[in-house]
Amino acid sequence: MLARLARRTRRTVRLLSDDATPSVPPQRIVVAVGGNALQRRGDRLTIENMLKAAKQMVPSILALRQAGHQVLLTHGNGPQVGELALERSAATFDVLGAESQGQIGYVLAQAFQSAGVDAACIVTQTAVDAGDKAFDNPTKYVGPVYGFKEAEALANQLDWTIKQDGEYYRRVVASPKPIAVLQLDAARTLLENNYPGLVVAGGGGGAPVSRVFGDVVGVEAVVDKDATGALMARELEADGFIILTDGGGIWHNFGKPDGREMKAVTPKYLKARKTGQKFPGSMGPKISAAISFVEGSSKPGAWAIIGDLNDAAELMSGAKGTKVCRDVPDDVTWHTSPPEESSPS
Amino acid sequence: MLARLARRTRRTVRLLSDDATPSVPPQRIVVAVGGNALQRRGDRLTIENMLKAAKQMVPSILALRQAGHQVLLTHGNGPQVGELALERSAATFDVLGAESQGQIGYVLAQAFQSAGVDAACIVTQTAVDAGDKAFDNPTKYVGPVYGFKEAEALANQLDWTIKQDGEYYRRVVASPKPIAVLQLDAARTLLENNYPGLVVAGGGGGAPVSRVFGDVVGVEAVVDKDATGALMARELEADGFIILTDGGGIWHNFGKPDGREMKAVTPKYLKARKTGQKFPGSMGPKISAAISFVEGSSKPGAWAIIGDLNDAAELMSGAKGTKVCRDVPDDVTWHTSPPEESSPS
Repeated sequence: MLARLARRTRRTVRLLSDDATPSVPPQRIVVAVGGNALQRRGDRLTIENMLKAAKQMVPSILALRQAGHQVLLTHGNGPQVGELALERSAATFDVLGAESQGQIGYVLAQAFQSAGVDAACIVTQTAVDAGDKAFDNPTKYVGPVYGFKEAEALANQLDWTIKQDGEYYRRVVASPKPIAVLQLDAARTLLENNYPGLVVAGGGGGAPVSRVFGDVVGVEAVVDKDATGALMARELEADGFIILTDGGGIWHNFGKPDGREMKAVTPKYLKARKTGQKFPGSMGPKISAAISFVEGSSKPGAWAIIGDLNDAAELMSGAKGTKVCRDVPDDVTWHTSPPEESSPS
Repeated sequence: MLARLARRTRRTVRLLSDDATPSVPPQRIVVAVGGNALQRRGDRLTIENMLKAAKQMVPSILALRQAGHQVLLTHGNGPQVGELALERSAATFDVLGAESQGQIGYVLAQAFQSAGVDAACIVTQTAVDAGDKAFDNPTKYVGPVYGFKEAEALANQLDWTIKQDGEYYRRVVASPKPIAVLQLDAARTLLENNYPGLVVAGGGGGAPVSRVFGDVVGVEAVVDKDATGALMARELEADGFIILTDGGGIWHNFGKPDGREMKAVTPKYLKARKTGQKFPGSMGPKISAAISFVEGSSKPGAWAIIGDLNDAAELMSGAKGTKVCRDVPDDVTWHTSPPEESSPS
């Protein structure tokens, strides 16, 4: 297992080095992985399956480090925190969020250790505004999907708010905007002082807390992990922010005959077209987070990349995924069709 | 609430400064708090009660920092991991241990933030030897107490090992010896580079893992938090290791008319008398951990103090608690009776 992982790591490093090293000087990068990095669609949510999925992601993240970049990893926790919530129905989502950070941080540590790298996960609190309007309109899906009748019964019984998710129904909780990541100084200290391991922080968006009348209190909410990732990237003065998905970058007319994927795009272009609003699933928050980092960064060259987890090694060179940055000719460029389709056969 | 805490903090600082600052130069100290720092006897185990208990401990820990000492905090997780195990019966103790670190790290962070200090809890794995004989004889109590019949039924139903604990019965799991703390470099980096928050690591003894045929695997066990604390203190080249209890320091004939508390004692004295073996509860492992640190440290002046959580501010000066170190006149000195008892009235 270890030998196989090591081989895969070496191969990925070579791919990335050939592509990217000449043109990309070492950068500080926040990388956000979604649920799919820890649970592949169709797999049961078990620690074993999480570890299996996490181990597949390891070479991509290590390749970035081995190319000289400083990496802070953050991760989603949707399925995990939902499962914990089912088993611990008396616990609130701030506590469950912290527990899921422990659980996922541990799984990530084990996955990276199998490739010879320690990972240090910092239990992270994210401050939100107690007056955030998000508390009036819960939007964050947590836990498994249900048919309508079952979801309705659970909602009545356990005082849940439920919403439609595709053809199913799921529980939703409030998703307020992150305003500060309280342990970010610890992450910065590790990054800036050559801690040899991988730093993990802001997992699941961070356990939400709020300052109320001078005290710090837990909040029944789940903060969007990409929003927290963008905030961490901005506050850490990162050069880049990579959001790894299970569906590639940002598309125009996704899934249609004229669909094409953006190669590079400005926040201005995305905002003018409200790109992401009409995409299924969770592309909207990812695009918002990318825009938020690129526009909010003090660095004019700040960039965000949204791309498929499986293409991680090819994102930095621009070969895959969508890069969001301030300077793009005509505000958008496109990936051409792959050669085997566009060239006559 | 915040104002009250701040007042209490100032008072404790003054106490410590008067006592200790002139004679004690800044030191690196690992502090281990037990279950009682997070759940007072008789209180129900809820997040609210944990937070209440944790807030009471905060001034003592901050007083050490404010006296100039570098502090790494570690904590037990017995009641918490036992409760998680009841609610998540399919999970193994490595995973539950990591989740309890998330939970307790979050509660500690909230408690310290209410006094204006961030706490960064690092999700910690502790390596144990897969061949440790402890796996043949589980000894670590986890979870609540039961009457014999109930405990026996649970043991049969859930494949638990149970053992007597005072007049009750409890589940026990293996408690192998820690051989490495995998995220200790992260804790060291934070301590040595002026991270302004409080560093928390090795909670619950660390989530136990073992290297088996080149891979890192989780282990169904709970590592003794004081043993892990001693290992961290040694590896961090700490000057001292403080174990806070809910029953004072090390006593001779505890609870008897001629009972007296040691003020300072050598490992040699403790080992010759097997002190701690005959004490009720968990004093044995604490004494072993203190000896292990003092004997194993590369610093000849290394010291460990075992003392009551409520006396934390008076431990460094020697006014309370028992100090274990290599050089003690006649190998042991004793606390005299308090003046109001020994002086004629």
